[in-house]
Amino acid sequence: MDAIAPVTQAEARALLRDYVNAIDRGRLGEWPNFFVDACSYRITTRENEERGFPLSIMLCSNRAMLFDRIEATEKANIFEPHSYRHILSDSEIVSESDGALTMRTSFLCVRIMQTGETMLFVSGEYIDEIVREEGRCRFRSKRVVLDSSRIDTLIAIPL
Amino acid sequence: MDAIAPVTQAEARALLRDYVNAIDRGRLGEWPNFFVDACSYRITTRENEERGFPLSIMLCSNRAMLFDRIEATEKANIFEPHSYRHILSDSEIVSESDGALTMRTSFLCVRIMQTGETMLFVSGEYIDEIVREEGRCRFRSKRVVLDSSRIDTLIAIPL
Amino acid sequence: MDAIAPVTQAEARALLRDYVNAIDRGRLGEWPNFFVDACSYRITTRENEERGFPLSIMLCSNRAMLFDRIEATEKANIFEPHSYRHILSDSEIVSESDGALTMRTSFLCVRIMQTGETMLFVSGEYIDEIVREEGRCRFRSKRVVLDSSRIDTLIAIPL
Repeated sequence: MDAIAPVTQAEARALLRDYVNAIDRGRLGEWPNFFVDACSYRITTRENEERGFPLSIMLCSNRAMLFDRIEATEKANIFEPHSYRHILSDSEIVSESDGALTMRTSFLCVRIMQTGETMLFVSGEYIDEIVREEGRCRFRSKRVVLDSSRIDTLIAIPL
Repeated sequence: MDAIAPVTQAEARALLRDYVNAIDRGRLGEWPNFFVDACSYRITTRENEERGFPLSIMLCSNRAMLFDRIEATEKANIFEPHSYRHILSDSEIVSESDGALTMRTSFLCVRIMQTGETMLFVSGEYIDEIVREEGRCRFRSKRVVLDSSRIDTLIAIPL
Repeated sequence: MDAIAPVTQAEARALLRDYVNAIDRGRLGEWPNFFVDACSYRITTRENEERGFPLSIMLCSNRAMLFDRIEATEKANIFEPHSYRHILSDSEIVSESDGALTMRTSFLCVRIMQTGETMLFVSGEYIDEIVREEGRCRFRSKRVVLDSSRIDTLIAIPL
């Protein structure tokens, strides 16, 4: 059996760029495909992390849940239309093991309402574990750690 | 005749960095020099793009128009003094052909008024076609696609 | 005696990333260690720079002053708790000489209050002189040039 080539930092960063681009361009149907099947996606806050609280703002523990989430969002369509714009700062490699790469990346997300109003929505860090699967890089886990604990109750679109 | 070396991603990115730096440092006289003579510069909105509307917030179809624009801005001087600060996120290569490179880049622009007030001004994407001319990289076309459709009527300084 | 290897752009950029990460994660005690002993740290404004005013919002002319500053901040603890999130745009090499590298980098800093309120705090440029000392890169000088002249009087946490 051939060994799987370890994920490089450049590949991990390209995955993250494509991930935020898919969201920012409104292609939410693609969102689950950035993850492996046995994945974990979690939005939490810095305060929760530091105090060791197990609370999450959003938690999906496999890819099927990601699909459900997007389907619900698109069907319900109850939220006021808006889009995001993510800006990424530099990434830091946290660890590499068994071909998986763990990376932390500061980010900022702007929210644009259909009325045109643009606001600084959230800032924080992505903590991503990236693996290669069927020749393509994907997230095995993605933890979105928000700086602020006062979050808009309505995070309809994933971050 | 020697072939012209294709524009690399690193060169394209350095051009974009120098472009936003020239604007942010108030060196508007340099602005047209980032473009080839037969260039296109256009500011539009995401909504216009998606609906296929030909509307532009600003449109210059050659370098002479860029010079006119800057001259008018500097002479008229009717606008309230302000400056910008651009923050670039990662670039994505869209296509490469005949030595030209087309690249999409998310950005955010902050506006600082002379009173000191700092505001999140606009977010969006640069869609840039970059070519090499006389040994230097320049924009053959630059499309600034803004996320919001509600734009300050006064875009005096180019984006 | 062996020559000291010149500081590379990648090393300088990693230093800057680690520097802002230490601040953003609240590890202020590490802050002075990013500088050599005979260092200069200065926060100023673009207006001051352009008019040649010697005024600084904050000025430390050696590492001991950086330690004092952090100690005072942590002991006094009079300010309303808050944290920062820095976003870095592209860096530009200004000069290289005697192994030292001087680099300019646009940045944006978001401030998150303990109440959860997130605001665009400041934007500007880092002008950094980076040297290698005992095998590690550090700042010999760091000039933080803010775009706005109207700064919150309370810059308790360094930028």
